Amino acid sequence: MQKGFVYLVGAGPGDPKLITLRGLECISKADVIVYDRLASPKLLTYARKDAELIFAGKEPDKHTFRQQEINTLLVEKALAGKIVTRLKGGDPFVFGRGGEEAEALVEHGIGFEIVPGITSAIAVPAYAGIPVTHRELSASLAIITGNEDPEKGNSQIRWEHLATGAGTLVILMGMANLPLIV
Amino acid sequence: MQKGFVYLVGAGPGDPKLITLRGLECISKADVIVYDRLASPKLLTYARKDAELIFAGKEPDKHTFRQQEINTLLVEKALAGKIVTRLKGGDPFVFGRGGEEAEALVEHGIGFEIVPGITSAIAVPAYAGIPVTHRELSASLAIITGNEDPEKGNSQIRWEHLATGAGTLVILMGMANLPLIV
Repeated sequence: MQKGFVYLVGAGPGDPKLITLRGLECISKADVIVYDRLASPKLLTYARKDAELIFAGKEPDKHTFRQQEINTLLVEKALAGKIVTRLKGGDPFVFGRGGEEAEALVEHGIGFEIVPGITSAIAVPAYAGIPVTHRELSASLAIITGNEDPEKGNSQIRWEHLATGAGTLVILMGMANLPLIV
Repeated sequence: MQKGFVYLVGAGPGDPKLITLRGLECISKADVIVYDRLASPKLLTYARKDAELIFAGKEPDKHTFRQQEINTLLVEKALAGKIVTRLKGGDPFVFGRGGEEAEALVEHGIGFEIVPGITSAIAVPAYAGIPVTHRELSASLAIITGNEDPEKGNSQIRWEHLATGAGTLVILMGMANLPLIV
């Protein structure tokens, strides 16, 4: 049987019009779509009528699918010859764990394409009227997770260097750890 | 006369399929399109046949338009009642000087909308197979200009803090200053 193919697609920050043309193409040609809670449900209306739609969203404190299970699902569908579109909120490589999915595909020799998406780290400030860089005011931007992998022993984030080093700081998913971060 | 409106649109990193649906809408309804060298020329085929197309690109060592002239152009066209789409490579607020254009529009009471674009800072590493963040390897990302405003007396970039603070460093437009940066 011929191997399938996987598109790791960023759906953007929520507004369905902020998906790319390439992302939309990948939705409309997929045999299987594996989608997240953060990707707009309206985007699924572009799927083929006979496409298999699988919700693999994670919600805080309620993991419907573990990341390892999602990796396995993508691999199994592709090995069965399917064209799979993995639709993720934001950008697949900005705190989207797309790197881990890509690694699983590489391990199994499955072809894949990364289709970048608009990351909320830049779009949300923009919608609030805040440019994350400005020629006179800010020559650098740091994007930081506020929700590091709890299984890591030591934080990789050197907050004191980042806080004094970057012109603009954007911290994602930081609500729960806000007192620590501040 | 009724005031016009300006869309500050990110065209993405070069591949015309990496523009958003919203960006494409803004191209197709504009009376005037002011575009950069970095925005794909194919995108202009979506413009109305009667749209006025103005090239405002800047090339290294050869400034066709100064930033102040672009700001003035956007303001004048909008005050003349036009729907103006300002099409910029990448994202308008990531080293795109969109902040300065937005300020000029605010000063003149002109309505505008920011339409984010895919920034090359994230898409180019992705196309090379490099996730800018990874749950096990990198919990933060810094995006830095390698080409600061030469009129600034002191660099705003604290390289020693950024180099040791961020998990991943992406430096844009840094070729000319590479020896200094390293």
